[in-house]
Amino acid sequence: MSDIRTIDVLSDSTGETAEKVVRAALLQFPHSGVQIRLHTRVRTRESARPVLERAAQEGALVVFTVVSPELREYIHASSYELRVEALDLIGSLIGKLGTYLDRQPINTPSAMLPLSDEYFRRIEAVEFTVKSDDGKEPRNFKKADIVLVGVSRTSKTPLSTLLAQRGLRVANLPIVLNFEVPPELEEAPQDRVVGLTIGLDQLVEIRKARLKQLGMPVDASYGLREQVKEELEYAAKIFRAHPQWPVIDVTGRAIEETAVIILESLKERDEQTKNARAAIV
Amino acid sequence: MSDIRTIDVLSDSTGETAEKVVRAALLQFPHSGVQIRLHTRVRTRESARPVLERAAQEGALVVFTVVSPELREYIHASSYELRVEALDLIGSLIGKLGTYLDRQPINTPSAMLPLSDEYFRRIEAVEFTVKSDDGKEPRNFKKADIVLVGVSRTSKTPLSTLLAQRGLRVANLPIVLNFEVPPELEEAPQDRVVGLTIGLDQLVEIRKARLKQLGMPVDASYGLREQVKEELEYAAKIFRAHPQWPVIDVTGRAIEETAVIILESLKERDEQTKNARAAIV
Repeated sequence: MSDIRTIDVLSDSTGETAEKVVRAALLQFPHSGVQIRLHTRVRTRESARPVLERAAQEGALVVFTVVSPELREYIHASSYELRVEALDLIGSLIGKLGTYLDRQPINTPSAMLPLSDEYFRRIEAVEFTVKSDDGKEPRNFKKADIVLVGVSRTSKTPLSTLLAQRGLRVANLPIVLNFEVPPELEEAPQDRVVGLTIGLDQLVEIRKARLKQLGMPVDASYGLREQVKEELEYAAKIFRAHPQWPVIDVTGRAIEETAVIILESLKERDEQTKNARAAIV
Repeated sequence: MSDIRTIDVLSDSTGETAEKVVRAALLQFPHSGVQIRLHTRVRTRESARPVLERAAQEGALVVFTVVSPELREYIHASSYELRVEALDLIGSLIGKLGTYLDRQPINTPSAMLPLSDEYFRRIEAVEFTVKSDDGKEPRNFKKADIVLVGVSRTSKTPLSTLLAQRGLRVANLPIVLNFEVPPELEEAPQDRVVGLTIGLDQLVEIRKARLKQLGMPVDASYGLREQVKEELEYAAKIFRAHPQWPVIDVTGRAIEETAVIILESLKERDEQTKNARAAIV
């Protein structure tokens, strides 16, 4: 058994979901130094077997998502034979769903299913969002499902792409000191605009780190703080002039959390974003 | 019991992982018309109880990810009492990990954990990637972990942002007929460049759909086909001139699948991308 602990994630598709669940669970064991090995498109006994044998040799833990009942059964039986600990991540959920829906699962690996309209809508949303980053396409403000507005370093770009992954077309606009927001934003549906704000201390820290990264002097901290304060006050003034916009504080929040808060603040008002959260699958 | 089938996803954090697993499992039941209701940051009995009561009333299925053993126990007991079907998505995985690692989990909802260096690296990668879309920042080619090169509509943008979510800094460059690739690309580490190609028929279909969307006439199909063919041949010529670049065919593939193939093709050569796949957590 090697020194490094290993989890073999075995999937009949891309393994993206399984890996995500394993990483989420590992957060409960900080600094565990666990290595994840991903085995994708494993769809036969012949391709599953070597993974299990190596796991047995190295004392690795196996976590798998496989939709074929036969292959699932084979993995269970082989793990027992090889004395490998193997955990089925999705089998009991599929079983429960089958009972709940009173239907049989199709047992086809998701990567082999035809691409859905939803899939293409998501792709299109990502393209729209990347093109509409940083105020580059003001005429997209009125076409967007969400327009994020805030000073530099309020997570506009990563928030935009995260929301786009859920099928939302997102544009964002930086607030720059003493620059008014462009008329295209005033003409866009105001109930889709969201203001982002951040605590002064955190923003000063982020900007200092940024200057350091760029190799600029950061001694002039007092000046920096005054300037950041002025920017945040200018943003607050713009937000006050647009009381329809919800304003969300991103201080100390992961973008995943801010994204949920944004969607919650919009969901009552906008059918499109509501669908992104509670979609009929 | 209402007509629409509902799954209540209950999470002590953002619910992103849980929702993803449920959506993956639902792919095995096409056209099931299931509605997902997401309940985020549920961390107390008082906030869990109404979700379970409503699920009982409406005959909904509950899927939960909660790290607190007490709250998990409470949800199990209440579900039993209310006769609600409730499935614990992450409990047994955390249990197995605890045994495997011979450690106690910290039982802290992931949204309450401090943001990791890995998190900030991912954010930075997304920002880099969005700024480097569509050949806009040629000087970023040499700083990128991956540079994707291909004709228009080979999924460069959505692939780039998907890879960026894994912490990779990605740039992409469109191949345009009779335009040479910029010198910045030739100067970049050639083992990080990946060519994307696509079947002629599929590309013609995509371009036709695109023209339709833009309200342009698509009768001139023959001309379109000739033009697309010429573009693909020009791309193939560029790829032949750069035999170091792996060339990946995206025809009929979901971007998640192409992303895995790209990472597999690079992993032996590049420690950085290897880490993105098999990261020490």
